[in-house]
Amino acid sequence: MNHIITIGREFGSGGRELGRRLAERLGCEYYDREILTQIAAHTSFSEEYVQQVVEGRAHRLYPITISNSFSFISDSHAQMVREVYEAQVNTLRELAELTDCVIVGRCADYLLREYQPFRIFVYADMDSRVRRCQARGDDREGLSEVELRRQIRRIDKDRARYYADCTGQTWGDKYNYDLCVNTTGQKIPDLVARLERLI
Amino acid sequence: MNHIITIGREFGSGGRELGRRLAERLGCEYYDREILTQIAAHTSFSEEYVQQVVEGRAHRLYPITISNSFSFISDSHAQMVREVYEAQVNTLRELAELTDCVIVGRCADYLLREYQPFRIFVYADMDSRVRRCQARGDDREGLSEVELRRQIRRIDKDRARYYADCTGQTWGDKYNYDLCVNTTGQKIPDLVARLERLI
Repeated sequence: MNHIITIGREFGSGGRELGRRLAERLGCEYYDREILTQIAAHTSFSEEYVQQVVEGRAHRLYPITISNSFSFISDSHAQMVREVYEAQVNTLRELAELTDCVIVGRCADYLLREYQPFRIFVYADMDSRVRRCQARGDDREGLSEVELRRQIRRIDKDRARYYADCTGQTWGDKYNYDLCVNTTGQKIPDLVARLERLI
Repeated sequence: MNHIITIGREFGSGGRELGRRLAERLGCEYYDREILTQIAAHTSFSEEYVQQVVEGRAHRLYPITISNSFSFISDSHAQMVREVYEAQVNTLRELAELTDCVIVGRCADYLLREYQPFRIFVYADMDSRVRRCQARGDDREGLSEVELRRQIRRIDKDRARYYADCTGQTWGDKYNYDLCVNTTGQKIPDLVARLERLI
């Protein structure tokens, strides 16, 4: 069985960078946003729609999910989400069968549980996440710090919602992970060099 | 400044063994229950009383803490707890000044925050903790598995209460630690060998 490392991460915590550098150092594959293309290829939907579902934003397309007059819309929507979910499971399994790899997000810690992945969750305090987002230019569209904080909270809320829908578990609950890494005030390259030996 | 590693741990998670082995491998001092003797020496109380306070069990000595007729008892009790708390702070600082060390429990992650310790929290699922307690003979007094589970929950509740009293923070909340380590199904010696390189 291949060695699989899964990384869940709060937005702005540096989890993606940590995953990428970890894969480089371990000499294994790294899967992140490119998984979306593969999931979409398993469905009849656009990559954009799949992205909205997998990032937990699809509910905004059909805000009235409990309704009488619109129930045909929510039924249809639920069916589409299910199709994306099944494509996601199949894609992740295909990747896990291929080779050792690091997979960021996509509920892989749960959906690949039969592969016994090493499950990491990366987090940091809000100030540290805001600074990391600013340093990498997430505020380049003229977001104020207040707006950036609001965006970070919104993205995490979406992730938590989609994770709960897919897994029935609470996103970020330490019992769902083997290791939880706090990146507050930490440089990711230093952390990765140390983590590599732990895994 | 000396390198300080603090270990918070759920009862039965193997956190104490992890701390002891970590100190052995790093060649630094290890402080655990022996701190009680030193704390007691800073106070006018017995080691037994100090232990009850530091393990969060002292509230059971004076169950009526909100009362009119017994208010002189609770006032006196609060004063005693404060004395133990101050002795605990002083003892921890003395140890932190001496040499590199691993300190298990005693709210050291918070009380020594000016020393910027590397803060580890060790946890595991309940089944794993029950099995670990049974393996080390914590049930040797004829505790059934149901009673053992109840004891584990009670001890953790006491720890959480004392931690909250001392720090104003939530015990086991991952944001209060640098690294959270899940020992479910893990052998502590293997984990320590890996952690040593991370720190």
